Amino acid sequence: MAVLACDLGGTRIKLGVVEAGRVLARRILDAESAHGLGPRLSAVEAALRELCDEAGVARVAGVAGAGMAGVAGVGISIPGIIDPHAGRVLAINAKYDDATQLDLGAWARQCFNLPLAMDNDARMALIGEWRHGAGRGCDNIAMITLGTGIGVAAVVEGRVLRGAHGQATILGGHLTVDYAGRRCTCGNIGCAEAEASTDVLAALAQTRDDLATSALAGETILDYRAVFDWAKRGDTCAAALRDHSLNVWAALAVNLVHAFDPERIVVGGGIAASDDLLPAMQRYVDQYAWTPRHRVELVRGRLGDDAALVACEWLVEKNHRGTETQSSG
Amino acid sequence: MAVLACDLGGTRIKLGVVEAGRVLARRILDAESAHGLGPRLSAVEAALRELCDEAGVARVAGVAGAGMAGVAGVGISIPGIIDPHAGRVLAINAKYDDATQLDLGAWARQCFNLPLAMDNDARMALIGEWRHGAGRGCDNIAMITLGTGIGVAAVVEGRVLRGAHGQATILGGHLTVDYAGRRCTCGNIGCAEAEASTDVLAALAQTRDDLATSALAGETILDYRAVFDWAKRGDTCAAALRDHSLNVWAALAVNLVHAFDPERIVVGGGIAASDDLLPAMQRYVDQYAWTPRHRVELVRGRLGDDAALVACEWLVEKNHRGTETQSSG
Repeated sequence: MAVLACDLGGTRIKLGVVEAGRVLARRILDAESAHGLGPRLSAVEAALRELCDEAGVARVAGVAGAGMAGVAGVGISIPGIIDPHAGRVLAINAKYDDATQLDLGAWARQCFNLPLAMDNDARMALIGEWRHGAGRGCDNIAMITLGTGIGVAAVVEGRVLRGAHGQATILGGHLTVDYAGRRCTCGNIGCAEAEASTDVLAALAQTRDDLATSALAGETILDYRAVFDWAKRGDTCAAALRDHSLNVWAALAVNLVHAFDPERIVVGGGIAASDDLLPAMQRYVDQYAWTPRHRVELVRGRLGDDAALVACEWLVEKNHRGTETQSSG
Repeated sequence: MAVLACDLGGTRIKLGVVEAGRVLARRILDAESAHGLGPRLSAVEAALRELCDEAGVARVAGVAGAGMAGVAGVGISIPGIIDPHAGRVLAINAKYDDATQLDLGAWARQCFNLPLAMDNDARMALIGEWRHGAGRGCDNIAMITLGTGIGVAAVVEGRVLRGAHGQATILGGHLTVDYAGRRCTCGNIGCAEAEASTDVLAALAQTRDDLATSALAGETILDYRAVFDWAKRGDTCAAALRDHSLNVWAALAVNLVHAFDPERIVVGGGIAASDDLLPAMQRYVDQYAWTPRHRVELVRGRLGDDAALVACEWLVEKNHRGTETQSSG
């Protein structure tokens, strides 16, 4: 059975029809997330209907209660804290700020007569990699997604941890790595995300006296691609920013080892594409994590943008089964 | 059915016969842990036999293969990393350093013809509080034990997390709270335990210029009791050490909220007896933890030394059932 998959990113909405771990058809919409999610839902609905046609998935449009033959449900990945039981967004940080008011389950029923399954984007990225990507075969795995902010999630003993309020593991980017550090947008002090992420990179650079004489000062967009590139070419300021950030991310990885005891940590997001990142983080984890009889392997995510889409299928099926315990395959 | 319970602390071995969450008889031995565990096992065996008599639990001494009527098994709490499947100690920090070589399962069979269940001491303290103490009724709970070091454990969605190698949650005292901080005995940098614990208190005090003029300089034993007492009486050095330590422990509590999403955090150990501790940590968690729709309550442990003993009963019964999932009661 296919699944209609929606990955609601801050700048782009990625849509797909997914079956057996494969994205049969896909579409990208501008998110316009500053205006909220509600105004985008009709465009999402229309695009999903077109994708069903493209993918050759049968649909029964406009017949109330008829459902869609061959489609099991709608899955949504969203950058917020989710109540998985109620299918509601409990909290969301800045983007799609109307999402807490929306009944997306009702939307999925009204539009498609299909059940909805929804979860946090960092968790969905992990689920995708776990079932179909870099995490296959592991029942204990954590993921760090280095994007604008830092997303974290973990599977422990074959279970996707959610905790008492749906928050377990996904606030991992807000693990304190410097209790006397920088104030984070979440309100906490010294979160990994506040110490090193694209969101704070400009502010970090401003703290350096050598920024004015650095090649980075000439960059139109100050991002980690520029930082890694100029660091490699010997720019002192860029090298300092790179090394600081690698330390923060690697200290976060050590925290995930100490908290969740994974066999493997998947590192995803745009920044993970840099060749320098994984070897440096791996050296740090090898040196500093307390793993007396084993080694935790850091690997790059394999699925990129598809991770959350293929996770939608797993989530819809899991909700259908009413249990999430699965041996890894 | 009763259980023979052994809590192997660094300085004291606490023994008990436990039934239905109650310690029917108890005994304390000097640990002499610097000499290892092996040399103490015959004293432990003898004391357990005497406790069976005291508790009125039937025993069949010296008859190989006869077992003990009315006793379900032996439980051990030990300050190390345990393989719960093999019943072996994988790693232990300084104390009982021969424990990794011992086959304690064989010892329990040979002495008592009983099965052995064993787990890490921080996890056992949590299990005790969860089933019979300050954690009753919660299926999502974490615990911080402030002793010589810092012990941490967590129950998430009604399950005691163990992870891939038995290490999940119990290295929580080694969550980095200052990635540029003090080197820890575990090899990591800026662990909560390295930043504030009885183990490092003297070293922390030495970093302060005002120690020489502080009342703490006159204390024979520099412990947190002295620090809290003198801080309350206006000693600047003591107040600074207290506030620093409270911040570290509270930042650790925030990390546990962000990692495990508990409803409640139990704080145990000798230092938790101070009246100032819990309110200060609670204020910090209220202010800095990202809990948009709820509040995580910090509570003091209720069972003290009995926590690990009563946990032995749960662990033996759980192993007997072959599953650890339990709704809370």
